Amino acid sequence: MKTALITGVSGYLGGHVARRMLADGWRVVALVRPGSQLTDDLDRQVTRASYDGTLSSIQAAFASASVDVVVHLASAVVANHRADQLDPILDANIRLPTQLLEAMRAGSCKRFVNTGTFWQYYNSDNYTPVNLYAATKQAFEDLALAYVENDGLVFHTLVLFDTYGADDPRRKIMQLLINAIDASTPLALSPGDQVLDLSHVDDIADAFASAVQRILTDNPGSWKKWRISGTRLPLKQLVELVAQVATMPPNVALGALPYRDREIMIPIDRAIPVLPDWAPRYELVDYIRHMVVERKQSRLTHEY
Amino acid sequence: MKTALITGVSGYLGGHVARRMLADGWRVVALVRPGSQLTDDLDRQVTRASYDGTLSSIQAAFASASVDVVVHLASAVVANHRADQLDPILDANIRLPTQLLEAMRAGSCKRFVNTGTFWQYYNSDNYTPVNLYAATKQAFEDLALAYVENDGLVFHTLVLFDTYGADDPRRKIMQLLINAIDASTPLALSPGDQVLDLSHVDDIADAFASAVQRILTDNPGSWKKWRISGTRLPLKQLVELVAQVATMPPNVALGALPYRDREIMIPIDRAIPVLPDWAPRYELVDYIRHMVVERKQSRLTHEY
Repeated sequence: MKTALITGVSGYLGGHVARRMLADGWRVVALVRPGSQLTDDLDRQVTRASYDGTLSSIQAAFASASVDVVVHLASAVVANHRADQLDPILDANIRLPTQLLEAMRAGSCKRFVNTGTFWQYYNSDNYTPVNLYAATKQAFEDLALAYVENDGLVFHTLVLFDTYGADDPRRKIMQLLINAIDASTPLALSPGDQVLDLSHVDDIADAFASAVQRILTDNPGSWKKWRISGTRLPLKQLVELVAQVATMPPNVALGALPYRDREIMIPIDRAIPVLPDWAPRYELVDYIRHMVVERKQSRLTHEY
Repeated sequence: MKTALITGVSGYLGGHVARRMLADGWRVVALVRPGSQLTDDLDRQVTRASYDGTLSSIQAAFASASVDVVVHLASAVVANHRADQLDPILDANIRLPTQLLEAMRAGSCKRFVNTGTFWQYYNSDNYTPVNLYAATKQAFEDLALAYVENDGLVFHTLVLFDTYGADDPRRKIMQLLINAIDASTPLALSPGDQVLDLSHVDDIADAFASAVQRILTDNPGSWKKWRISGTRLPLKQLVELVAQVATMPPNVALGALPYRDREIMIPIDRAIPVLPDWAPRYELVDYIRHMVVERKQSRLTHEY
């Protein structure tokens, strides 16, 4: 039985990755802040290790179990940060993962699966950050290279795009569009020509499970990066797709908002290869169909 | 009268840059840790601003003066770090300068002269860190790009190599070689085929003074990088040069030590342009001659 130390298990993606690892027979150590809430099913199945901001708390987490791989999904995601958010962002996105690498340098676990974002590539095949959050992701990868080259750590990054799935507490576009079906006030959107890349959360979990298997046999000093690409289509085409499935257009106002500052119109593609031995299982249209049906049923239930 | 906020003024290079800026008629605000020692001449001439690790202390420093340009020379330079040095290194090399940029984002000063190191390029034209220190330098540049692209800051980096000068408290190769002239025990060195790039500290100060003038008229959103190259020669040729000038060989044992892990054999050159409108004024051989004479005189003095 192998052990994964996973960060971000209290989050939406991290929770799904942890469940998938557990289902695959892994033991999971969840590195969490004191007071972080896990859902009941995860709370029963994972071992909690407490992170208090110090390297020693991370060293204690490694000492508590024989860890085979680290999967890092914790992140402070802030699109437009305020000054008072700078320190927490640096702590979460740079200090925490670098402390993990530092502990690994002296320990027996040498394999680290990292999470990147397409926001590191603003309409470019090269690093050009959309915002500070994306820059902290890049900065951490730079720091990781020192541990890879000097200490033989193995470091793989999965670059994520937009994600969706059931019970998503994040205000993501898929959920917003589904909610806009027969909403009374229109959902204000940009003109909608930006291409989205949408992956189901279970496909993301598959990708991490696959990356974990792959990294276990990779050579010391290896640094790799893959993208986890799902369905690509412009936002306005996604609106049409929802309209077709729902047999009524969602109440949206395309063009009511300007594009965001530094909106990515075409997410990075060929410059980063897709993770090998992985392909999405979920069809976007099936998910929309499922959500539309579920929505109707829940409305029926309420009418009783 | 213009004002520069300078970090690292308590250090060897930072002190020389501050003196040069003062000599050029600038007002200097030295951002220093409480308890940092400045030499008496600097203490009389600069305005101290205290940095306690917080963004608010930096905001207070900017509020205390109308700053035109920031010159960032503070750095935690650690060739091979220990685990307990990780947090201080991240704080000094990433948090401090990012807090400076964050304060500048909301303020009127938008120009930042940064210090890089040739250790960011381990026998490569691309980023490949010699050690964690070099990685933190790269990580900060990546963070800076977010402020350049999102907030229109102007960011120039001067990439430094080895430096030398009078009264250098750092254990640098020039000083060690001069001290090895008629030393009783030999100075153990590597085989000496690595090429050094040596600049006099006053040439470094010239370069920063020149970069400061240049950045004042550059356009918003500009991100540039230049190298400050001095005399290039292999270490063993430097040993010969000292021997010629001193008319006796320094007591060194070339090959008594192995090369360092990740020793740079040929420092980065053409991939990064030399700072325009700047050229070194100091000849390495003149400096050696000066030091050899001074050494003889000081020995005569002692014989009285």
